[in-house]
Amino acid sequence: MNLVDDMYIPTFDDVIIAHERIQPYIHKTPVLTSSYLNELTGATLFFKCENFQKAGAFKARGASNAVFGLDENTSSKGVATHSSGNHALSLSYAAGQRGIPVTVVMPRTAPEAKKAAVRGYGGTVIECEPSMSSRESVFAEVVADTGADFVHPYNDPRVIAGQATCSRELLEEVGALDAVVAPIGGGGMISGTCLTLSNTAPTIKIYAAEPKNADDAYRSFKAGHIIADDAPQTVADGLKVPLKDLTWHFVSNHVEDILLAEEQEIIDAMYLIWQRMKIVVEPSSAVPLATILKNKEVFAGRRVGVIITGGNVDLDRLPWLNT
Amino acid sequence: MNLVDDMYIPTFDDVIIAHERIQPYIHKTPVLTSSYLNELTGATLFFKCENFQKAGAFKARGASNAVFGLDENTSSKGVATHSSGNHALSLSYAAGQRGIPVTVVMPRTAPEAKKAAVRGYGGTVIECEPSMSSRESVFAEVVADTGADFVHPYNDPRVIAGQATCSRELLEEVGALDAVVAPIGGGGMISGTCLTLSNTAPTIKIYAAEPKNADDAYRSFKAGHIIADDAPQTVADGLKVPLKDLTWHFVSNHVEDILLAEEQEIIDAMYLIWQRMKIVVEPSSAVPLATILKNKEVFAGRRVGVIITGGNVDLDRLPWLNT
Repeated sequence: MNLVDDMYIPTFDDVIIAHERIQPYIHKTPVLTSSYLNELTGATLFFKCENFQKAGAFKARGASNAVFGLDENTSSKGVATHSSGNHALSLSYAAGQRGIPVTVVMPRTAPEAKKAAVRGYGGTVIECEPSMSSRESVFAEVVADTGADFVHPYNDPRVIAGQATCSRELLEEVGALDAVVAPIGGGGMISGTCLTLSNTAPTIKIYAAEPKNADDAYRSFKAGHIIADDAPQTVADGLKVPLKDLTWHFVSNHVEDILLAEEQEIIDAMYLIWQRMKIVVEPSSAVPLATILKNKEVFAGRRVGVIITGGNVDLDRLPWLNT
Repeated sequence: MNLVDDMYIPTFDDVIIAHERIQPYIHKTPVLTSSYLNELTGATLFFKCENFQKAGAFKARGASNAVFGLDENTSSKGVATHSSGNHALSLSYAAGQRGIPVTVVMPRTAPEAKKAAVRGYGGTVIECEPSMSSRESVFAEVVADTGADFVHPYNDPRVIAGQATCSRELLEEVGALDAVVAPIGGGGMISGTCLTLSNTAPTIKIYAAEPKNADDAYRSFKAGHIIADDAPQTVADGLKVPLKDLTWHFVSNHVEDILLAEEQEIIDAMYLIWQRMKIVVEPSSAVPLATILKNKEVFAGRRVGVIITGGNVDLDRLPWLNT
């Protein structure tokens, strides 16, 4: 067992097992390029488009790995989670594929489209207040009532091993890279990226991209220990949650740097992606491009993987039309 | 020479030559599928995504074929066209690739984004009134002044042979199909589709999808001769132009039927594509899905190719937010 401070740290073998396990339930998403954005940044960018993933986000990978790794007995009681959105959809999707119950605790302020989509996949939504503390207390009740298996949105080795399959596919498709940039919220995608790259391509530098308005991971990284915000405000609503011990392990050991973007920079980058790449991405997905545009000297002349994490956005409330 | 009524009708050999000629300048665009839309329609849909094409629309194919087929002497005087949008961008793109001048006559009401993009590619924009008659008279002056080669947006065998490469790629990628549905405005894409399919897969039924508010092709098809509207109004602004003799040749000989969609149906289908497929498509591109949803009995149980013609939309003026 690969234990650190009593935590099980997923290994690359777990990633290989996860990839085989989830293959029937996920898309091998395309990698897109844009000559316009290459010219604008001076880098050669490879966008791994998880907005085309099942349930609209990379989180289908980790959720599917957790759900399909359960034994029959455990799975019969179902799964439960709390999530600001995409993990909720993804866990509902995966549970639906396996035919087991799923309960999701969501902030009442989460986009209606996401709540409706959870219900559309057959999940049960229970609302909490939009704070970490409310979310956790409401959730404890749900688990006590149902006996469901808790699949944490990111601080779970099964979930991290699942997310790690994303950068594995990216490398298989595009070959050598100098850097990979992914958004950071709770750190699930970044941890998966660290897990894959540290084992298969350790020279690739891993950058985490974070909204300045929710910069707890940045401050944690600089301080050398986890600093958590309760209820930060950012347009990148997938990135409000704090690091936890397992994701902190990967971030503190393998991330080269954490780069920050202002709200307007995130919105501008999102607009640019929609306009030039013709894809629908959510604000969180635009944070990496925003930080690349802001730190051109770091990436110019390099081959850079960019994780487009998801495309679940409320089309009736686009951020550039609300400001 | 393949002449009908003194018109040169492009042959499948022209398509093969065009495909080889334009290869360095166009993308082989991806074909996407959506399990949600398959379930909704009862058909198996293959979306050929020309919104990812160079200059954001299939028209880069025909424009590139025309521009790169010119001899040195002719090309030095440049090219010119009139267009409601995407052909303008595409001709500017292709001329820019060859390094020759390009002049575009556009309605003053065309989206600002399209005018800016023409200028971004180095083209000169000359504005006319938003009617076919104004467009043609202004254009005649431009050609007289510059001596440029006129590349018509669709009534040109070079353009049709170029557009025909789109369905050729689609068939190569997905194999046998029962039907293909493409939008119809002037008929360039539909004519190219007819040209390829009638030569390589004549059992595939070809359906043209048209806005009810600009149903001149439908009425022409039923009447057996071209009926032209001057300045019809539809959200699908790429589909306002009438058939001409060359495209009428293909439409009247090879199209199975023309299906109509109301404005709200087009907007709803566009919203559905953005929301579920996570791609940015313009209203014209949504007309085929709107007609498939409206005529489920025609397509249920069948393998259907759907041409997504382009993604050039003004993100600040989305139709579902203006109604």
